Amino acid sequence: MAAEEGSFKALNENTLVDYIKATPSLCSRLGNDFGNLKIKEVGDGNLNFVYIVTTDSGSLVIKQALPYIRCIGESWPMSKERAYFEAITLQEHGRWCPDHVPVVYHFDRVMSLIGMRYLAPPHIILRKGLIAGIEYPLLAEHMADYMSKTLFHTSLLYNTTAVHRQEVAKYCGNLELCRLTEQVVFSDPYKKSEYNRCTSPYLDEDALAVQKDDALKLEVAELKAKFCERAQALIHGDLHTGSVMATQDSTQVIDPEFAVYGPMGFDIGAYLGNLILAYFSQDGHADAANDRYAYKQWILKTIEDTWKLFEKKFTSLWAENKDGSGEAYLSAIYNDRVFSLAQENYVKDLFHDSLGFGAAKMIRRIVGVAHVEDFESIQDAKIRAGCERRALEFAKKLLKERRGFQTIDAVIVAIQEVPF
Amino acid sequence: MAAEEGSFKALNENTLVDYIKATPSLCSRLGNDFGNLKIKEVGDGNLNFVYIVTTDSGSLVIKQALPYIRCIGESWPMSKERAYFEAITLQEHGRWCPDHVPVVYHFDRVMSLIGMRYLAPPHIILRKGLIAGIEYPLLAEHMADYMSKTLFHTSLLYNTTAVHRQEVAKYCGNLELCRLTEQVVFSDPYKKSEYNRCTSPYLDEDALAVQKDDALKLEVAELKAKFCERAQALIHGDLHTGSVMATQDSTQVIDPEFAVYGPMGFDIGAYLGNLILAYFSQDGHADAANDRYAYKQWILKTIEDTWKLFEKKFTSLWAENKDGSGEAYLSAIYNDRVFSLAQENYVKDLFHDSLGFGAAKMIRRIVGVAHVEDFESIQDAKIRAGCERRALEFAKKLLKERRGFQTIDAVIVAIQEVPF
Repeated sequence: MAAEEGSFKALNENTLVDYIKATPSLCSRLGNDFGNLKIKEVGDGNLNFVYIVTTDSGSLVIKQALPYIRCIGESWPMSKERAYFEAITLQEHGRWCPDHVPVVYHFDRVMSLIGMRYLAPPHIILRKGLIAGIEYPLLAEHMADYMSKTLFHTSLLYNTTAVHRQEVAKYCGNLELCRLTEQVVFSDPYKKSEYNRCTSPYLDEDALAVQKDDALKLEVAELKAKFCERAQALIHGDLHTGSVMATQDSTQVIDPEFAVYGPMGFDIGAYLGNLILAYFSQDGHADAANDRYAYKQWILKTIEDTWKLFEKKFTSLWAENKDGSGEAYLSAIYNDRVFSLAQENYVKDLFHDSLGFGAAKMIRRIVGVAHVEDFESIQDAKIRAGCERRALEFAKKLLKERRGFQTIDAVIVAIQEVPF
Repeated sequence: MAAEEGSFKALNENTLVDYIKATPSLCSRLGNDFGNLKIKEVGDGNLNFVYIVTTDSGSLVIKQALPYIRCIGESWPMSKERAYFEAITLQEHGRWCPDHVPVVYHFDRVMSLIGMRYLAPPHIILRKGLIAGIEYPLLAEHMADYMSKTLFHTSLLYNTTAVHRQEVAKYCGNLELCRLTEQVVFSDPYKKSEYNRCTSPYLDEDALAVQKDDALKLEVAELKAKFCERAQALIHGDLHTGSVMATQDSTQVIDPEFAVYGPMGFDIGAYLGNLILAYFSQDGHADAANDRYAYKQWILKTIEDTWKLFEKKFTSLWAENKDGSGEAYLSAIYNDRVFSLAQENYVKDLFHDSLGFGAAKMIRRIVGVAHVEDFESIQDAKIRAGCERRALEFAKKLLKERRGFQTIDAVIVAIQEVPF
């Protein structure tokens, strides 16, 4: 295809049209019809350009990575190869969970360009829905489905070690994005850094306290090592509520450009941790018309259901495939009672990993570089700081005492016990 | 170089001469002098051909990997790329610990051929020395030196995550050798397998008991996952006492063809576990002239010293490099008291990992496919089985209760408490 030849060129609304017209796999998605063609750049993220393309007969999204971080500019270079890792992860995760991963129509490695399904309105970013107080009745079911299927099928519970090591090697190449995670999640919040910020002056002391908390720092070291060393499954790598688009009956996971073989708990924790952040932000969004009490209860129920459904689906997939090609637990060794015990041990470790990573992801969103709109959209800084402080205190406790939590119910109780 | 062109060809004593003559880096090691040339094939291992080459003016060893397992034949294919991983590991480990790793003179990837230093007599395989009852006064110091330097410098305590992920990816290619380890160490001993054998009939019940021991199998599953998933450092991968050549003042580690980024404890455990096997075999070598009591005490002291010196050297290297490029514990975060605590935690985990892997390596040498000469050379099967049973009982206890051992001294006490 002509469009795939040549060298990298950053596109704009105009040059994109020519690109699409020269690319059959994209034209066909538009019904080969350019009547009423509309192109709108909507990249609200920090890294990339995203174009919605619609015609009378079809639609698609084009995402292009530039060789630097969009929101900072050329002074912070960032490999545009991240588009390659995003594309192959969308395809691999989509293979196992097509219901919750947008279809990739086209990938151009030279141009760092992905053409994929346009998630039309009423799809909105889940985080915005959570801020607006919208309940999603199928969200827990869908996200449990996505996490269980993608993580199980890319782990040694399903694959041979030969396949696993080949895939691990491939994703080692995504090291620049991993380094960003390592820095902003596991390092910067725990030291003085020009990038850190917090709701000042209210949280200045709290941010300093994080940097002086030895017990916290020891736990974070363990998690960082696990993130860097443990190739447990192909993780999304950035599974917060801004990487999910939702409607009442659809849930779609996008933006896996941070994908790598890493600990499963990093994905599960990122997602649950961001739901917990959403919970603690609700008091900042309460007003006379809506105290958000019921919505907070819905968030807690969603957290609870997500984990419980995940556990159920994950262990079911494992049981269904226990005589398959997975090499972690050969059925000739692990059968009957010891199989159940093995599952129990595995899930317990995964639970504690998830709580740890979730807590770390919460902390970094309060005292690190990148904050979340859940809190940022609370106009009154003092109220915002109050919400953030409660989330931070809970996250610190969770990180340090995670091995003491035996069930998600105990976590839910602890969330509600955080004093005002 | 002419010798590096063309395709793979298995050499023999005759064709090897032509190969050497066509390879300047090998000729020069022989002083470019072929007077009194002697070539002797000495590969007593299971996998490769090894030639000792001497002339009046020099010497070297040539090791060639064939695309199958030597002791079985062409019916068990095995990637000859293992020679590549052996060569690059000898070079990388040699870079950090030149005193205890033989120099590589030449590597030919197409021919899967390594030319390296000839470890002349009185160097013998350490295992044979242990069977003969020879004390090596510097062994603990040397092996602690080798393990601390190679493991530290290839971990995230010393390297950036970028370097680490690149190296991890490279070694993922050594998957066939890793699969052999996974099968013979972590799987076969715990199930019925045509390859397993034991000193029958004496140990038949003991071997079956291993396959029925749920607690043991759950622990082994955890270790197998750690071996397959955790890229902690560039490990030798087969560091038993047959991979060490020793004299009274020299200790050389050879044969790292199983090298991969894996858990450090796999190397440390393999080595200590094989010393413990040597200990339990001594009663089978006792005779009227020598009850081996003093030698057993020397082995125990060597085990104790090896761990204590390793811990000292490893934490010293870490402390010396704590402001370096290693990214696991940034000095801006981990300083003063928390640095000491971090070291304590790290070493404690490594200790328990080492005990676990060491125990697994012991078990597989008694009820798995590959046994050790320490026991095999005990002629009386009943006496041999008695020695093996005590080693097996200790290994099972160690694997299941390893987290209860706080010091190497406690392990030494437990070894001596195994009942006859």
